[in-house]
Amino acid sequence: METPILRMAGNPEDSNELYIKREDLLPFSMGGNKVRIAEAFFRDMKQKGCSSMIIYGSRHSNLCRVLSALCRSRGVPCVMICSHEEGEEQEITNNTVLVDWTGTEIVHCRKQEIAAAVEDVMKRLTAEGKTPYYIFGNKYGTGNEGTAASAYAEAYREILEYEGRQGFSFDYIFLPSGTGATQSGLICGKLLMGGRASVMGVMISSREYERAREVIREGIVSYFERAGKILPGDYQQEIHLLDQYRQEGYGKYDKRIEDCIREVYCRDGVALDPVYTAKAFWGMKEYLREKQVKGKKVLFLHTGGGPLFYDYLTKREKASLL
Amino acid sequence: METPILRMAGNPEDSNELYIKREDLLPFSMGGNKVRIAEAFFRDMKQKGCSSMIIYGSRHSNLCRVLSALCRSRGVPCVMICSHEEGEEQEITNNTVLVDWTGTEIVHCRKQEIAAAVEDVMKRLTAEGKTPYYIFGNKYGTGNEGTAASAYAEAYREILEYEGRQGFSFDYIFLPSGTGATQSGLICGKLLMGGRASVMGVMISSREYERAREVIREGIVSYFERAGKILPGDYQQEIHLLDQYRQEGYGKYDKRIEDCIREVYCRDGVALDPVYTAKAFWGMKEYLREKQVKGKKVLFLHTGGGPLFYDYLTKREKASLL
Repeated sequence: METPILRMAGNPEDSNELYIKREDLLPFSMGGNKVRIAEAFFRDMKQKGCSSMIIYGSRHSNLCRVLSALCRSRGVPCVMICSHEEGEEQEITNNTVLVDWTGTEIVHCRKQEIAAAVEDVMKRLTAEGKTPYYIFGNKYGTGNEGTAASAYAEAYREILEYEGRQGFSFDYIFLPSGTGATQSGLICGKLLMGGRASVMGVMISSREYERAREVIREGIVSYFERAGKILPGDYQQEIHLLDQYRQEGYGKYDKRIEDCIREVYCRDGVALDPVYTAKAFWGMKEYLREKQVKGKKVLFLHTGGGPLFYDYLTKREKASLL
Repeated sequence: METPILRMAGNPEDSNELYIKREDLLPFSMGGNKVRIAEAFFRDMKQKGCSSMIIYGSRHSNLCRVLSALCRSRGVPCVMICSHEEGEEQEITNNTVLVDWTGTEIVHCRKQEIAAAVEDVMKRLTAEGKTPYYIFGNKYGTGNEGTAASAYAEAYREILEYEGRQGFSFDYIFLPSGTGATQSGLICGKLLMGGRASVMGVMISSREYERAREVIREGIVSYFERAGKILPGDYQQEIHLLDQYRQEGYGKYDKRIEDCIREVYCRDGVALDPVYTAKAFWGMKEYLREKQVKGKKVLFLHTGGGPLFYDYLTKREKASLL
């Protein structure tokens, strides 16, 4: 299912033309980039002959929401490992409710206990005769980087085709960079199919910068290995990662992000959430302003996250209107 | 912007093929049928030489949410008349927050005071030199039925084109019937362009049945008059309105609706809200079962209402998970 690319009203203060690719309109479980990624994991699970899925994420996780719904709709048993920071166990998010609806079992653990939790669940499912597939590979979460990347290596084609129809090329593609899989995928697409746009990941996670870059690099290498293609020697030039707009870290945001959410809704009728898309959108605007980028064609990849937008709306409503 | 029609998993208990047209994916202000209807009102306002808009609805109103965003994004002043039932003034909905974001002025009144409120606001805007346009015509809310209907008279073409591509015809098109405008429009489309499907409105409002039928009829007549076309003599045969599935009235729902929401999400990854779409979807399933409809091709029009789905999710979460 191809998603639309639409012109945005843009910033009055500069002369860039702003476009948005509406991945949030993918027609399954509230949409978002994780729909394509979940489908890639699902295909990989089948190819590897597995019959149950182990997924991992925080209580904000859009990927876990989509994967739990996909497993449920196709009758595949699913267990979620849900990690928590200290002191946040009690907050229930829209994504948590939706995962709960699907009947997915949720195993809670602390951040430093993930590998042990994955191993436990793998052993248990194996003992029950359900061949388990852990989406991120081995219990340390490595070995399957190329699968998630494949989704956006393929989706990149839609951007190229749009450029072809319009008779122009984008100068930049901005997107939120969290796990790095979507960015890896877009870079793979560009390396394989060509195109001019620089793929600009705006970091929204708390991950250390060098580690984040390395994960994107691993995704690219892993995808090329899987696909049996030769990776160009200078591929690392394509990794553009901005770490200066993440504020206090994952899930943290201040008034500038809140203003951005409201402004984009009022100008374009588009909903952005404070954890991923609004932070990246705001980072993009800051970057364009700081670097004095003018007269360029800029594409923003709306990676979805509707449930987080409404989590925010509920919090804001409680705080200011009641 | 054309919305996709997708095959649904369907009911295991019958042999009907179920499809869904995803109007919820229209790419402005959370989508829904009201996006098309709001655009029709906006064009009509311009054609009539007006420069400000008066809109009307309850605090659940999807139409007011979309219209307020459309006015804001295009720099048109907008005032919302918001009517309340006794004792519900304090509940804040997602749609209320979103209307508030756009800077739309909200004038509150009781149900029996609407005409007076509209008249007051019209006088005030006129005195300020802003030629006002009231979406529903005169202060009693009549005279503009054909405008809203025109949106779905045109959208009906997408259904016909889909049928042409697939090489089959739908037997039924089910949809929530509230103001009646969407249903009037689809019937106009069928009368003008042909097609085989019966357009089945599932009443979700508290409106009296005969009055609801009459409003749909007026919409059809008004659209044909505006379009300068001749209305077939037997057009009233096309009005199918089911009033037996609205439970206790507008916004009221019981466990059967809640089960339906969860079931459709788990089976198809589609979100339905309890006020409009889930009630209509449940009504459709009940109708097909009661009438023992089998082996038919059935299209459900998903008219959107994402903010109401999340209102529900928040309520449910508070009730059961905390």
